[in-house]
Amino acid sequence: MRELVAEVIVPAFDNAWLSTLEDQARLPPGSLPEGSTLAFTTDSYVVSPLVFPGGDIGTLAVCGTVNDLAVGGAHPRWLSCALILEEGTSIDLLRQVLASMAAKAREAKVAIVTGDTKVVQRGACDGLFINTSGIGAIPAGRHTGPETVRSGDRLIVNGTLGDHGIAILAARNELALEIPVLSDCGPLNELVEIMFEAAPHGGIHWLRDCTRGGLATIANEFATEGKLNLNLFESALPVNDAVRGACEILGLDPLYLANEGKLAAIVSAQAAGPVLAAMHAHPLGQAAAIVGEVLKPDTRNRAPVTLRSVFGGERVVDLLHGDQLPRIC
Amino acid sequence: MRELVAEVIVPAFDNAWLSTLEDQARLPPGSLPEGSTLAFTTDSYVVSPLVFPGGDIGTLAVCGTVNDLAVGGAHPRWLSCALILEEGTSIDLLRQVLASMAAKAREAKVAIVTGDTKVVQRGACDGLFINTSGIGAIPAGRHTGPETVRSGDRLIVNGTLGDHGIAILAARNELALEIPVLSDCGPLNELVEIMFEAAPHGGIHWLRDCTRGGLATIANEFATEGKLNLNLFESALPVNDAVRGACEILGLDPLYLANEGKLAAIVSAQAAGPVLAAMHAHPLGQAAAIVGEVLKPDTRNRAPVTLRSVFGGERVVDLLHGDQLPRIC
Repeated sequence: MRELVAEVIVPAFDNAWLSTLEDQARLPPGSLPEGSTLAFTTDSYVVSPLVFPGGDIGTLAVCGTVNDLAVGGAHPRWLSCALILEEGTSIDLLRQVLASMAAKAREAKVAIVTGDTKVVQRGACDGLFINTSGIGAIPAGRHTGPETVRSGDRLIVNGTLGDHGIAILAARNELALEIPVLSDCGPLNELVEIMFEAAPHGGIHWLRDCTRGGLATIANEFATEGKLNLNLFESALPVNDAVRGACEILGLDPLYLANEGKLAAIVSAQAAGPVLAAMHAHPLGQAAAIVGEVLKPDTRNRAPVTLRSVFGGERVVDLLHGDQLPRIC
Repeated sequence: MRELVAEVIVPAFDNAWLSTLEDQARLPPGSLPEGSTLAFTTDSYVVSPLVFPGGDIGTLAVCGTVNDLAVGGAHPRWLSCALILEEGTSIDLLRQVLASMAAKAREAKVAIVTGDTKVVQRGACDGLFINTSGIGAIPAGRHTGPETVRSGDRLIVNGTLGDHGIAILAARNELALEIPVLSDCGPLNELVEIMFEAAPHGGIHWLRDCTRGGLATIANEFATEGKLNLNLFESALPVNDAVRGACEILGLDPLYLANEGKLAAIVSAQAAGPVLAAMHAHPLGQAAAIVGEVLKPDTRNRAPVTLRSVFGGERVVDLLHGDQLPRIC
């Protein structure tokens, strides 16, 4: 165990905090800008299979936690990494996963500063589980959340829906897709900062990442927690041809498929144009689109989330009962 | 899942941060005293069985992370709670574990402010794994670590050794011990503060918690990382009669058994008396004892850690190769 930590894990994340081998990272005073709010989040990753087209459990473990901080308006700064390894898991696989974590951490400009490793006997866990917790700093004066939302606000997503869900499904069932679908797993913090810069007067109202349950679930969370109504525009939803094809064959709806590099943003009508333009200039926002709007509050008797179909009709977008796909992240 | 989180998990930890259901806790500016250093730690708990005499995996998950922060000199403040549940795990067991977490968090005066829950299919994990990460604040001017240690410093432990290890072993093998042994699992942060107060001029030099591998392992870590020699006094080691008895029957050494409410402190010779007296007045320090000392650096050719036996002889206290007991925490 001592060797595993010292020779495989710590070198993978090479930094001064980890190499002390203390059971805690010490982040000196002044590490956080004055007046900023501390953001703290945690996520465990149990994805199956551990490696999939476009990433692996390590990619996911860094991006997922970075994105949780970013959509809360925080600058992600420090991550922890806690591994639960099944006895017999290959060291090569572990090295690959750690390398993915290190690469995504560099991309997101966060440091993995503390960690823990437990090994359990064969059969007591499914290969490898990873927990990452994250600390970020929300700049002074930045406020997002339901209380800032107004009717007429636009709903923006930063790109195509469902890529992660289909990539996992393909890896699991060995679907031979004609055009292979890669997971969209990526760190969104830089994109989020660009969005805030494009809307300097508080035009970014509320952000969430579209993970488990997809855009449909996030839209329902926005509606329920924010006590508001959302109308989605089917014709505007960005979906890759390969994902659309796979969904048609399998009877899945891209609205409910998981993403790992996608966010949904409620933005003021005024800010929507500049924000969208700024997003289009970023690699992770090239297919960004306005996909819905917040309705006036006199629509109380409507379902919380509706969709205007390409044929002009309206349908309710409900919460899915049960997971469409388990262990997607 | 939504119901499980909203109806079972969030109410167990009832606080304003968690009830927002956002994927992050927001800890406002000024939450940390000015000039303090941020401490950040993480641990996953995979103990088997989930419930044992004196505690359960929830007790452990709070105390372990609180203690990691406390022995680093930090005031523990906020914890995360990430659960990985095996499908079919009983809700009653989960409620019991969450209640233990809440009780220990109250005792340690920390808040569980953010969380995550994943469910995996039967056989993909062993009942329940918990990760807790923790944030604490190290007061300005407080410095501990190897660079503060001097020859002649005393090694103090706060009580009897090996209780947790024997409690787990008993729970696992259904040993019928004549006197049942309870785990010593408890939060050490209040005791640590009392120790710092009793040694106001930097007399507390280095602290670690004696978990996996027991006092022998921690003493070796001190010696190796601090490039120093330690001599332990066998006659001074506090061990419960029941633990001593079980060790004799089973051929175990209490020096290597895990503890979950024990720390080892290297303290200046001058401060050792007042610190010990202060510890004796605290419920978790009643059996505290000076159990060793730091040797002069001219003892370079000695083994890093030695033990002066009750008969006056000396023996080497080596690192154990391999775990004495797996999944002890």
